[in-house]
Amino acid sequence: MIRIGICGYGNLGRGVESSIQKASDMELVAVFSRRNPSDLKINTKTANVCHVDELENYVGKIDVLIICGGSATDLPVQTPKYANMFNVIDSFDTHAKINEHFNNVDKECKKNNTVGVISVGWDPGMFSLNRLYAEAILPQGDTFTFWGKGVSQGHSDAIRRIDGVLDAKQYTIPKEEALTKVRSKEKIVLSTRDKHLRECFVVLKDGANSDLIEKTIKEMPNYFSDYDTIVNFISLDEFKKNHSGIAHGGFVIRTGETGFNNENKHIIEYNIKLDSNPEFTSNVMVSYARAAYRLSKEQKYGCYTVFDIAPKYIASKTQEALMNSIL
Amino acid sequence: MIRIGICGYGNLGRGVESSIQKASDMELVAVFSRRNPSDLKINTKTANVCHVDELENYVGKIDVLIICGGSATDLPVQTPKYANMFNVIDSFDTHAKINEHFNNVDKECKKNNTVGVISVGWDPGMFSLNRLYAEAILPQGDTFTFWGKGVSQGHSDAIRRIDGVLDAKQYTIPKEEALTKVRSKEKIVLSTRDKHLRECFVVLKDGANSDLIEKTIKEMPNYFSDYDTIVNFISLDEFKKNHSGIAHGGFVIRTGETGFNNENKHIIEYNIKLDSNPEFTSNVMVSYARAAYRLSKEQKYGCYTVFDIAPKYIASKTQEALMNSIL
Repeated sequence: MIRIGICGYGNLGRGVESSIQKASDMELVAVFSRRNPSDLKINTKTANVCHVDELENYVGKIDVLIICGGSATDLPVQTPKYANMFNVIDSFDTHAKINEHFNNVDKECKKNNTVGVISVGWDPGMFSLNRLYAEAILPQGDTFTFWGKGVSQGHSDAIRRIDGVLDAKQYTIPKEEALTKVRSKEKIVLSTRDKHLRECFVVLKDGANSDLIEKTIKEMPNYFSDYDTIVNFISLDEFKKNHSGIAHGGFVIRTGETGFNNENKHIIEYNIKLDSNPEFTSNVMVSYARAAYRLSKEQKYGCYTVFDIAPKYIASKTQEALMNSIL
Repeated sequence: MIRIGICGYGNLGRGVESSIQKASDMELVAVFSRRNPSDLKINTKTANVCHVDELENYVGKIDVLIICGGSATDLPVQTPKYANMFNVIDSFDTHAKINEHFNNVDKECKKNNTVGVISVGWDPGMFSLNRLYAEAILPQGDTFTFWGKGVSQGHSDAIRRIDGVLDAKQYTIPKEEALTKVRSKEKIVLSTRDKHLRECFVVLKDGANSDLIEKTIKEMPNYFSDYDTIVNFISLDEFKKNHSGIAHGGFVIRTGETGFNNENKHIIEYNIKLDSNPEFTSNVMVSYARAAYRLSKEQKYGCYTVFDIAPKYIASKTQEALMNSIL
């Protein structure tokens, strides 16, 4: 049995816990949180609940620590720090800083003979893998990534920071006509505005100016100004009732040409439709926890991304069983 | 530059040749065939055309030999034999014998310090990979593979062996209603008949009994009796005009559940639409030739499948460039 620890017990941490209950080769040893352990109620009867400060007492008792913190401030600190003691997995998703994070984790892993796997999830993660495979196979072509329909946390946060806003959710929605065009095998160029629609549901504070807030949202640079944006103002009741969903999804589509005269067109499409974004992400992390465990048993210490790990490492079947059943 | 040899110059061999012309890190050294070299006209001006018996003269001059023979009789002999001298790639697709073939190639590779990658293409190949990733991520669920629309060589051959048949093509066609059901997130069971339709285009010899031939096709065990089969009799002219296509495609769809009470459903779908089946297959083989070359440089000798190779090995970009651009 692979002994798992979970660090951080929000949506993602709970998702990891439920995923481990379905993995016949894993057991949850403990959940670690910055909160007071007595305030935390977990689902797994056999696992301990501890404060993060107790982590060092679990060296040798946990094979892989799955770190379920946020990318902005938690993971850049936690992942290298805990790679000192454990094999670690995270879902670091600040694309521009992945290289720096990789190097920080790699250094700690190599110093302490541990394995780290960073940026595990669906994007970065499974979408990244599909971009890599499709580009390698069709080197002459174009890749399109669409996200949604689903809530973007970053865009929702940006709206919440506007004066007069009580709460907000922003849905990223791929435009059907853009998907249709990409799938037509024609050579096309799509602008940011062509690909996605942004729909916002906003609850106002008393006395807030809705016209001004709508204008502020629609003109917000980077977040909204390059998109068609719909702003809906709703009551707190409606917000709570209809906008607590955690569904998400998306598409990676590669179109490309082959042949001596580029006469043949091909489309590779990967798409996912998820009832729960955090539970799907956590399932990917749990698969790669299996890989981290095996790589550490092979003493292949250091930091990895999904690009660096042979697929067989994440499967629970043996190599021979994989060949016989799904190759 | 990675120096490539092609063994076998049918549709697949020509596909490999055109693919190498687009790979900036590869060059074609020579094409080897059982035919008389003077009868063979290839597209690449700088490459040699040789009889297969000359292969041994190319040891040290070729980094990877891409073997483009058939799975029935060619590859079981050729791949282990040439793994004696070269790093090799094949597209062996007899699912039931992959394990045996793997062991034969592995033995030769390890004896001679070469790398072999077998069963490379889209199924087995990219479809296998997608089955593995999706099953690892959603361990509780079902995988559905659909093929087509495209020509099945085996089924076309089976029809051609019937007395009175001059020529024939059989298209495997996924049933739309089955695809819709699978994508509905409902738990479903599909029979063989539910999933695919088989449509046949048959040219008769003079005086052949069309009723008897139609009956023979539709009742043929393993090939047709478990399917809804449509048989069309057409003229040789129409056959030549409309049924020389090499388009193909297919779908791998995994549906699964997560959550403490299995309350959340997810769908992962991978699908491809190909103008040219052999050219797409050959592009996959060329990507894995890059992997074979790199593995041999790292002295990691032996036989591999797509399951055993980290994705980064097939990409032309460096690890850092991959992290910065598509992770």
